[in-house]
Amino acid sequence: MEIDLSRPILARNDQLASRNRERLEAAGVFALDVLASPGAGKTTTILATAALLRDRYRIAVIEGDIASKVDAEKVKAHGIPAVQINTGGACHLEADMISRALDALPLADLDLVIVENVGNLVCPTEFDLGQGARIVILSVPEGDDKPLKYPQIFALADAIVLNKYDTMHVFDFDEAAFRDAVRHLNGGAPIFPISAKTGEGVEAWVAWLSERVDSARDGGLQT
Amino acid sequence: MEIDLSRPILARNDQLASRNRERLEAAGVFALDVLASPGAGKTTTILATAALLRDRYRIAVIEGDIASKVDAEKVKAHGIPAVQINTGGACHLEADMISRALDALPLADLDLVIVENVGNLVCPTEFDLGQGARIVILSVPEGDDKPLKYPQIFALADAIVLNKYDTMHVFDFDEAAFRDAVRHLNGGAPIFPISAKTGEGVEAWVAWLSERVDSARDGGLQT
Repeated sequence: MEIDLSRPILARNDQLASRNRERLEAAGVFALDVLASPGAGKTTTILATAALLRDRYRIAVIEGDIASKVDAEKVKAHGIPAVQINTGGACHLEADMISRALDALPLADLDLVIVENVGNLVCPTEFDLGQGARIVILSVPEGDDKPLKYPQIFALADAIVLNKYDTMHVFDFDEAAFRDAVRHLNGGAPIFPISAKTGEGVEAWVAWLSERVDSARDGGLQT
Repeated sequence: MEIDLSRPILARNDQLASRNRERLEAAGVFALDVLASPGAGKTTTILATAALLRDRYRIAVIEGDIASKVDAEKVKAHGIPAVQINTGGACHLEADMISRALDALPLADLDLVIVENVGNLVCPTEFDLGQGARIVILSVPEGDDKPLKYPQIFALADAIVLNKYDTMHVFDFDEAAFRDAVRHLNGGAPIFPISAKTGEGVEAWVAWLSERVDSARDGGLQT
């Protein structure tokens, strides 16, 4: 006999995610779920994003990791409030973890919550967290073929950030092939080439995000 | 009520893994499980390894991916037999997938089977495949803090390959900090800095692997 427990688990997660979403919308807070491989530059991208937006919005970060507080410490060192979730082995964040992290944040005094998911291009795909948007960060060193190998996560992204763009000359990354592969999976998601390290391209990405934060703050519908 | 299905699933996987191990040992074949993030250079490292060893050993590759045949095609283009496993969403290989892949290979005519696991630093850790050794490949662009964030996979590795070593000048990678973090988790695993692209360092790594392949071929005990 086989019991498929994935359906009830996902159904329960979806319920909790809806509750998170209602709570965020009521508070006028936009939540961004950041998905990527280990080492694609999630934390650096979040810091570069916050650096451009912190005068305009009140920002907090939720850090998801199997273990360690490395990332939350890094974020706090920049004066941005951060909550660390250690999943203790689990390969993705779930809505109930976010719910508890939101309890620890002063939602009424925030405009933007950035959630850094566990470094993983597979497991987070099925778990709605209640976010306003999900982005996938791919870094140039990982190679242009990743959308072919991890199609689900590229298919569900609201935007794609192509990070470490400043190292393009060091790697054999075929940007046209990458864009083609993404287009086949996801016609709607814009692609933002950036270097979180040098700041190149970050403004265009931040403009996209700001539109959504403004819309959440105004109580508008999120798309 | 909560039912923990992970124990029976893992117990069944361990049984099948033991069967794979007996089968490989009986055939004098060494199986290497290659673990890494997406884009760390698993396929390139396997090709660089096979290039140095193909005159000495009869080699086949088992490719694990969520989707696509990109990697198996790449390996076959180099004249090395390859079996592609598409997990259809699953974030790791399991022993029964390897068992079926071994059915498709002429085991009696092989010395070395290299298994490229799904790109993931979390999920494959708990699933024994019946391999003779497991290695983790970390690439320099991913950053030196990965052992802190993904400790389990570094703890169980028999060896660690530090790939894309030729790009060290482009990234802020603290090699001493990386080696320290690995030592805390895993005192026994040697670290091999290599560039699978330029060939730098590959010989030392291949010497380590060859010892184990020879030992399996001679019917000796694998360590």
